[in-house]
Amino acid sequence: MYDLVIVGSGPAGLSAAVYARRAGMHILVLERNPMSGGQVLNTYEVDNYLGLPGMNGFDLGMKFREHADRMGAEFAEAEVKGLAVQTDAGSTAPDGRAYTVKTDRGDFTARAVLIATGAEHAKLGVAGEEELAGRGVSYCATCDGAFFRDRTVAVVGGGDVAAEDAVFLAGICRKVFLIHRRDRLRAAAVLQERVKKLSNVEILWNTVVEEIKGEEQVSAVRIRDVISGEDRDMAVDGVFIAVGIRPNSGVFAGIADCDGGGYFVAGEDCATTAPGIYAAGDVRTKALRQVVTAVADGANAVAGIQDYFNGKELFRNNL
Amino acid sequence: MYDLVIVGSGPAGLSAAVYARRAGMHILVLERNPMSGGQVLNTYEVDNYLGLPGMNGFDLGMKFREHADRMGAEFAEAEVKGLAVQTDAGSTAPDGRAYTVKTDRGDFTARAVLIATGAEHAKLGVAGEEELAGRGVSYCATCDGAFFRDRTVAVVGGGDVAAEDAVFLAGICRKVFLIHRRDRLRAAAVLQERVKKLSNVEILWNTVVEEIKGEEQVSAVRIRDVISGEDRDMAVDGVFIAVGIRPNSGVFAGIADCDGGGYFVAGEDCATTAPGIYAAGDVRTKALRQVVTAVADGANAVAGIQDYFNGKELFRNNL
Repeated sequence: MYDLVIVGSGPAGLSAAVYARRAGMHILVLERNPMSGGQVLNTYEVDNYLGLPGMNGFDLGMKFREHADRMGAEFAEAEVKGLAVQTDAGSTAPDGRAYTVKTDRGDFTARAVLIATGAEHAKLGVAGEEELAGRGVSYCATCDGAFFRDRTVAVVGGGDVAAEDAVFLAGICRKVFLIHRRDRLRAAAVLQERVKKLSNVEILWNTVVEEIKGEEQVSAVRIRDVISGEDRDMAVDGVFIAVGIRPNSGVFAGIADCDGGGYFVAGEDCATTAPGIYAAGDVRTKALRQVVTAVADGANAVAGIQDYFNGKELFRNNL
Repeated sequence: MYDLVIVGSGPAGLSAAVYARRAGMHILVLERNPMSGGQVLNTYEVDNYLGLPGMNGFDLGMKFREHADRMGAEFAEAEVKGLAVQTDAGSTAPDGRAYTVKTDRGDFTARAVLIATGAEHAKLGVAGEEELAGRGVSYCATCDGAFFRDRTVAVVGGGDVAAEDAVFLAGICRKVFLIHRRDRLRAAAVLQERVKKLSNVEILWNTVVEEIKGEEQVSAVRIRDVISGEDRDMAVDGVFIAVGIRPNSGVFAGIADCDGGGYFVAGEDCATTAPGIYAAGDVRTKALRQVVTAVADGANAVAGIQDYFNGKELFRNNL
């Protein structure tokens, strides 16, 4: 039996692997893909992870994995199919519980499980989007906005995140187009007011993006007015797509409470509502999904798991 | 007027500087010492900040500072003497509030202030402690325990942290002596039970450390039995001192709520109980004080400050 099975090998999972190994735990990291790093791998440049400025995302993912390897973490490439709990399994938990992680490569049993499976940004599904991802197409203004200083960008969406992105980018970029398919935003009223006050933000109502154009980098978006049906190309240097995010929590459905968006309900200690099940990184409820907040989650989760092994959680709850 | 004054240039302050500059904020970082990095500077090796394994603490501090410099952060060496709030100061806050940070080098006014002044571990105050710090003397088992795999160490203290450190180190080290000056631990009962069950932990009751000995590295502790008055040398490879931690919050007394230990009461978003005042890193209430959790705080605090500038905090509170 492992002390801990970590599902996912992005920044959260790899940081947890480092902390758990340093704590002397017997662990296994399960990864779906042949490469570790998660979403970081597909990021053109990460410039806000303190101490490693201007990193190519692929290289950063490699550095993270090397660190976990150096600590002696064990990895297996496997797709998780489900999770089952057994009580009286001989663990140190009060009910002796252990968890079996079921995968396409067999079952793995552990005293605790860390779910670090991340999230995926919803795609527009238009031509050029995939080809130009990381080359002007971004799904994270906080991550990539600074690369577009004094440039012209488009934000696509109408919710809170799109409005926040427009406000954030307005402080950096020369001009921001907020492109929304409807005639009103869904964003909170206070955010809508902020957006409308900004002189360098222009909202394009009833407008959809049909194609993202560019050779090496984004140069324009083809947009269509859904009322008039008219198409036109609009020159932009970047496109920020804010049409939703989906946590990779489905395979664990029912094991612990999720919020309406499918995120595991967990605070800074990453403890879910199920004893011995922890959630770290983009898959848990949190305000800011960044590389460094995922890495911190990995550390906090292991501290929480140590408390769980020590029975300290119970102590806290009894106070 | 600055958008944000950051007090402290450890990992939390420097990460906040990177995030704030990338968000286009006009910021100033105030640092007490001529070197940035905070407690990291005095750490022999940091091996758990993902992506930068086996870093000398001094070099890590330099890397962190260089990153903030690269983003164009402005620094000033100044000792903060106090903080004053003015309303109707022309900020975008509902009451127009701004804060003046008073220092020995003049006053600096900002729409928001981030307190990232860290904490200091209480010292034993014995011979050899300072000389061998980072060379076998440690104040953080989570940080440094892994360097003592299969070795013999002493933990000094009797509270929760000392007991937790003993449990943690028992999983890594060959032998752990828990040295406590009284005849019972103050630690939670469940932790005491855990400690007493571990075959490789030996508690030395009524015992104080009089001196830490060693040339390049710790080799022994001189201990005294306070009942019999007898002294003896005991061979150890490391000494973990867990006799308390003091947040550097005193100069800001009264500006926002602190807990009984002097930590600013603030959650993951680093918002204190005072509008526009944020606390990041070791100085806020949190479970795990590590480089990476401080760096994550810097990012989360800036996101919180952006929400504050956008009026989103109010929106949240009104819901």
